[in-house]
Amino acid sequence: MMSEQPAAVKLIGWFGSPYAHRAEVALRLKGVSYELIMEDLSNKSDLLLKHNPVHQKVPVLLHGDRPGICESLVIVEYVDEAFDGPSILPSDPLARAAARFWASFMDTEFRESMWMALWADGEAQAAGAMETKAKLTLIEGQLTEGKRFFGGDTIGYLDIALSGIAHWIGVFEEIAGVRLLTEEEHPTLCRWAKEYTGDETVRECLPDKDRVVAALAPRKELYVSIAKALTGHK
Amino acid sequence: MMSEQPAAVKLIGWFGSPYAHRAEVALRLKGVSYELIMEDLSNKSDLLLKHNPVHQKVPVLLHGDRPGICESLVIVEYVDEAFDGPSILPSDPLARAAARFWASFMDTEFRESMWMALWADGEAQAAGAMETKAKLTLIEGQLTEGKRFFGGDTIGYLDIALSGIAHWIGVFEEIAGVRLLTEEEHPTLCRWAKEYTGDETVRECLPDKDRVVAALAPRKELYVSIAKALTGHK
Repeated sequence: MMSEQPAAVKLIGWFGSPYAHRAEVALRLKGVSYELIMEDLSNKSDLLLKHNPVHQKVPVLLHGDRPGICESLVIVEYVDEAFDGPSILPSDPLARAAARFWASFMDTEFRESMWMALWADGEAQAAGAMETKAKLTLIEGQLTEGKRFFGGDTIGYLDIALSGIAHWIGVFEEIAGVRLLTEEEHPTLCRWAKEYTGDETVRECLPDKDRVVAALAPRKELYVSIAKALTGHK
Repeated sequence: MMSEQPAAVKLIGWFGSPYAHRAEVALRLKGVSYELIMEDLSNKSDLLLKHNPVHQKVPVLLHGDRPGICESLVIVEYVDEAFDGPSILPSDPLARAAARFWASFMDTEFRESMWMALWADGEAQAAGAMETKAKLTLIEGQLTEGKRFFGGDTIGYLDIALSGIAHWIGVFEEIAGVRLLTEEEHPTLCRWAKEYTGDETVRECLPDKDRVVAALAPRKELYVSIAKALTGHK
């Protein structure tokens, strides 16, 4: 391309997705101008299928004419590396490793326990709730005393990775009728959640909780059926 | 510390682990001197439990007196960032994103299909084998024509992440009595696997296949029982 304009940035997202939120916050923290393309998840676009043929999921980041970038945490690292602006990942390799470790923990172990705590019933639900709370305690332990964010004084990679805890747990608690994150049991994490959701950059792209509840509530039966199937092998 | 010596590097591993192999290859590619501590997985050491209390798994990298670094791919990125030597990740952000995407694919979607293909029976096994082969084709498609490795002319991050395909698939195929990766169906991937396992640096830390088969064969029943439980919700 001969143009001197920077390559256009487009984000394929969905308003209620915690994963699309991660990508959007990263772009905003970097001060990148982007076009947000809202995907209809019940009728996926050719654009989404073309750029994320493997998972067919949002978010997908398009930067110029090059292939789309998929998976929310991969997008956050890409945004940090490809654009100027404040660093999202810490600069110290050990701190980077710790942030990546806990982000991965969030998307695997934590997510699995939370699913059972929200959507299973009986013993499997009780066990899931206990595990989820223990894992919230582990995550809370990563907040350094006196720091507002996991990233220190400003929002960083791990804050973004944990945004599901800051905002979406409340959504799912309401749909499921279960409480997992409380001031009594996790005061420091609740304090952080308020800092995160109250941050000006975050607020610009944080979906309204009631609207997300309304959009996701019809999926409750699906969530419950998955939890039931998973209960068999726990 | 007042010492002028570089901080000691220790890797807690296990001889047959594809995940420990990733960490070890990364250290060797960087030319880092390290002490390999072989863990007894049936009687885990206090050192392992101290440094990886969350997962209690190998590999764990210890660099000086600082906390241990856990999770193989996190360790590979740490080694790339913390030590001099040839770069393991590509320098272009888009290529880095693609490498991270496929590494994550390997450890989630691919691993799940392969598990069923190896250890399930009946329809679940057949479906798993079909999925595994389709995913091998997707992975094979990431090899650029004329390049020896996913990383280009030298071994890089994605080659390391996929080392399980280069070496361990053969181990599990032998224990399970199933063939998944063949010259007929995936000639380019088989060519790459030979390049990878034949590389001098890799060979220095690649465990003997027969020894790994002997060590892992007693776990077959466990693997089969997990696949049986998983079959319920597929």
